[in-house]
Amino acid sequence: MSDCVFCAIVAGTAPASIVLDEPDVLAFMDIRPFTPGHLLVIPKRHASGLAHLAPQDGAQVFDAGRRIATALRASSLPVDGVNLFLADGVAAGQEVFHVHLHVVPRRRGDGFGLRAVPRTPNRTVLDGTAETVRAALAETGGSAG
Amino acid sequence: MSDCVFCAIVAGTAPASIVLDEPDVLAFMDIRPFTPGHLLVIPKRHASGLAHLAPQDGAQVFDAGRRIATALRASSLPVDGVNLFLADGVAAGQEVFHVHLHVVPRRRGDGFGLRAVPRTPNRTVLDGTAETVRAALAETGGSAG
Repeated sequence: MSDCVFCAIVAGTAPASIVLDEPDVLAFMDIRPFTPGHLLVIPKRHASGLAHLAPQDGAQVFDAGRRIATALRASSLPVDGVNLFLADGVAAGQEVFHVHLHVVPRRRGDGFGLRAVPRTPNRTVLDGTAETVRAALAETGGSAG
Repeated sequence: MSDCVFCAIVAGTAPASIVLDEPDVLAFMDIRPFTPGHLLVIPKRHASGLAHLAPQDGAQVFDAGRRIATALRASSLPVDGVNLFLADGVAAGQEVFHVHLHVVPRRRGDGFGLRAVPRTPNRTVLDGTAETVRAALAETGGSAG
């Protein structure tokens, strides 16, 4: 994608602080980190969102995130935990339309977290929602149905 | 793990509203959803955190999350986007110590999001952090170094 900043980083025509460079994935520091060490893992092949992401690219992105999380904990950076986060779609907060997995090192009291008010629906409601998702999985070929 | 609630769900001895049941992964509704349709994907094999997660289990968990995200968008639920979220460690907000990937359907104005104040370090700082993570990846066998 000629106008994609992450594709430009893959091509070496935009600057980035690279952490991991493998045949199918690239990891580099987020330029607006939530915490020190916050980085992004992307598939080298352009995919605007999860719906267009090749399954094998997704698996490799997650595996790189898993290995980087382990490395962060072993590093000299202040890391007591790690969040993985992915935004798919504008409504989910996606800003760059090339799939990217955030890897966010955490310490107690670092100020990062989720803004959420969990609800407690009863089992009947949960079962109904599960049935709706199962039907959609079958329709979209996501499961055996 | 005898005292793990997610292992009990896998074993069928604790209730859950199941969305996807495959040989190595299970997905079910979160009982305290951030938004309607919020669910969890877990590996059936117990792993307390990313450091103990078998790579192939991680890949399958992510792939299930990817397929479920696509299904959610195609479902009758109100979904304009999807967040994937994983907490590894107490400092990251992990509460159940069996790896789980949150899949959170999103709509504009749903009130869910990140609580964060991004910083803008300069390139020298980012390059230094990247070097630190690269060294830790090499030490932990996470990359070719």
